[in-house]
Amino acid sequence: MKVRLLLFLCAITFNGFAQNNVLVFQSDFGLKDGAVSAMKGVAMGVSTDIKIFDVTHEIPAFNIWEAAYRLSQTAQYYPAGTVFVSVCDPGVGTARHSVVLLTKSGHYFVTPDNGTLTLIAEQLGIQEIREIDEVKNRRQNSNESYTFHGRDVYAFTGARLASKTITFEEVGPKLPNEVVKIDYQKPVFEKGIIKGGIPILDIQYGNVWTNIDKKTFANLDLKAGDFVKIQIFNGTKKAYEGKLKLVHTFGEVAVGTDVCYFNSLLNFSLAVNQGSFSAKHKIYSGAEWSILVSK
Amino acid sequence: MKVRLLLFLCAITFNGFAQNNVLVFQSDFGLKDGAVSAMKGVAMGVSTDIKIFDVTHEIPAFNIWEAAYRLSQTAQYYPAGTVFVSVCDPGVGTARHSVVLLTKSGHYFVTPDNGTLTLIAEQLGIQEIREIDEVKNRRQNSNESYTFHGRDVYAFTGARLASKTITFEEVGPKLPNEVVKIDYQKPVFEKGIIKGGIPILDIQYGNVWTNIDKKTFANLDLKAGDFVKIQIFNGTKKAYEGKLKLVHTFGEVAVGTDVCYFNSLLNFSLAVNQGSFSAKHKIYSGAEWSILVSK
Amino acid sequence: MKVRLLLFLCAITFNGFAQNNVLVFQSDFGLKDGAVSAMKGVAMGVSTDIKIFDVTHEIPAFNIWEAAYRLSQTAQYYPAGTVFVSVCDPGVGTARHSVVLLTKSGHYFVTPDNGTLTLIAEQLGIQEIREIDEVKNRRQNSNESYTFHGRDVYAFTGARLASKTITFEEVGPKLPNEVVKIDYQKPVFEKGIIKGGIPILDIQYGNVWTNIDKKTFANLDLKAGDFVKIQIFNGTKKAYEGKLKLVHTFGEVAVGTDVCYFNSLLNFSLAVNQGSFSAKHKIYSGAEWSILVSK
Repeated sequence: MKVRLLLFLCAITFNGFAQNNVLVFQSDFGLKDGAVSAMKGVAMGVSTDIKIFDVTHEIPAFNIWEAAYRLSQTAQYYPAGTVFVSVCDPGVGTARHSVVLLTKSGHYFVTPDNGTLTLIAEQLGIQEIREIDEVKNRRQNSNESYTFHGRDVYAFTGARLASKTITFEEVGPKLPNEVVKIDYQKPVFEKGIIKGGIPILDIQYGNVWTNIDKKTFANLDLKAGDFVKIQIFNGTKKAYEGKLKLVHTFGEVAVGTDVCYFNSLLNFSLAVNQGSFSAKHKIYSGAEWSILVSK
Repeated sequence: MKVRLLLFLCAITFNGFAQNNVLVFQSDFGLKDGAVSAMKGVAMGVSTDIKIFDVTHEIPAFNIWEAAYRLSQTAQYYPAGTVFVSVCDPGVGTARHSVVLLTKSGHYFVTPDNGTLTLIAEQLGIQEIREIDEVKNRRQNSNESYTFHGRDVYAFTGARLASKTITFEEVGPKLPNEVVKIDYQKPVFEKGIIKGGIPILDIQYGNVWTNIDKKTFANLDLKAGDFVKIQIFNGTKKAYEGKLKLVHTFGEVAVGTDVCYFNSLLNFSLAVNQGSFSAKHKIYSGAEWSILVSK
Repeated sequence: MKVRLLLFLCAITFNGFAQNNVLVFQSDFGLKDGAVSAMKGVAMGVSTDIKIFDVTHEIPAFNIWEAAYRLSQTAQYYPAGTVFVSVCDPGVGTARHSVVLLTKSGHYFVTPDNGTLTLIAEQLGIQEIREIDEVKNRRQNSNESYTFHGRDVYAFTGARLASKTITFEEVGPKLPNEVVKIDYQKPVFEKGIIKGGIPILDIQYGNVWTNIDKKTFANLDLKAGDFVKIQIFNGTKKAYEGKLKLVHTFGEVAVGTDVCYFNSLLNFSLAVNQGSFSAKHKIYSGAEWSILVSK
């Protein structure tokens, strides 16, 4: 019986981590030239059975923080076994490692280890990291090209991994379970006040997304319908102060009214019903922005 | 023989309406963040055999009319059995119904019933409408999120329907064969003049598309090569007056010349050969614009 | 033995040219309306087994040169047997031929023959060209529409070819092995100076890409780390003069420094590390721009 149980557990583990032929690309290339398409062509050259999707290719050029953020916003909704390739690589050709991270959730991330993995490593947990052996895992006849690792190494390796052409072990040698991290303000509760950061805007609508999660917010003992006191700082300069109604849905207030709510990632956020909080109050995102939230 | 014929007809009906594993998304999310990708990830979690496409994700924020228009421009070209998911939902979380419309043509539309179905219901006909049972048809562990129905309900239900994980009946209870409609000016012919609306611009080129179809236009008894008298109004203010040559193809006139023609949807339209009629004459689209066409 | 070898070689040839169910679209339609989606819907109506990708749909309106360039930048990375559909067609409805080019590399290109094939024909070689028989290869019930060949003829024919619904021979009658060509400055080496063109910008980053390939550049006998003398002209007016370090990767120089390098297509290019050479020096691309490169 014990052996059976063990085999059963092994099978579960294997199934959770087995690649599923789904390959998801992210980059700062934009969609106006052929760069993204060339990566997908390389993947099709590996196997036409791979199903290809995109996170986004509109990461602002060289913005590793946003690349990290978009992965953490998206990857969890794909099934275990999905392979992600993220190419935001201002240091292309320099000494940063090219790696594949396998998370405890069974997702694979092919990327330069330059900070891109900061949030996903915290969120999904590090199971194992391997350095890409660029001699074995490189598109044929691509040695002459020094500048398009995304196509010649990352897309090629991601496609071979997704299609089980290679195993995770064949990616290359194991590295320590650590990734390069970008420093950022985590949410803290102290003396009745929560301090947090503004990692990103919901740019399509102009909503302001903080990194204050629902559990940290619970320390304030506020419920839907209550008003929340908010101060926002750009460095040391106060950029906004106000009291906003906490709502479940924007439809609860009139068009044009400022509200606060929990976004689809369950983080505390600020919005204007059918308007832009960012544009109205000139609030933006990044490491220099902070927010204080209290009763 | 009669039984055979009946079975044969049933088979035809079934084939016409049977889902075909094709899932098409539309939204006002844009492609700069991870929202569209998260919806596709949820669909992959349902079945990796689903083939996913997009109408567009560049519907202007909250513009239900344009969401309705884009569906009517596109859906008919996909085979029967295709499932469309449209998420343009300014009233998310309010009392509007979440529905799936099955058209007489055998296409499925998963959407909030907020006007998005106005044109497609007229164009393809209503076969049956069901309200989404959000207890059964909701992504696991998504009850905490109040604001991303697109991902947790619509994408999930669309994917389950497209992959035949659920039948149309399992979507939820049947509703009356009516959809919420947006009021708009339909084309009419009276006393030698056709009055119509300008529902949309062909924005990539600046062409002005009216809703005057070829059959209504035929009342004027004009043919290719003839000149057409046109007046355009913004509310009650005249915005354009002119006589334009009716052409089959822009190549018939010099570069920069104004023409009128029937667009790819066979609606009467205005253009400048290799230029923008909209920019040249400051003509835009929407409910407040109208056009008079005569000999 | 000879017969076996012959059969073996035939099989290789056949495999190299056999369609692989992969269909890649390119157009100047943009992604804001439903035009691209309608083309993909038509393809799904032919066969839901087709795998669909895109080069880009952001070709500037009517810019045939850029359509030609994007194909040449991308197609080679897809496996032999892939079918490309390119719709940049300012002359739609006029006398230009609608063709399918089969290259020596085994790639298929469905397009109006209006210059779009200029570069790909040189790069991959012309194996055979056939004119599309628009009576046989046209979407049913589409005769009334004069303006959307992309959907009704090109997407339909491309999908039927990709899915082997028709053979290459069934596209239509054979044409001479010639394509309509756009005139452009090819790179030449004379008296110690290389003259070349600037066919395109790497717009996402603002890098300037010349058409001077690595082999032509080798005439100058320069190596990484050397400085290169560069003059750029807009017509006869000098727009830039400078000496730039030749680098393998941007990481070799400080942020903000101008450099020259070989891009991912192995063409001589100009960049600013983490900046835009185009914006900094007001250098753009097109037939009127030329560059002189020397020691």
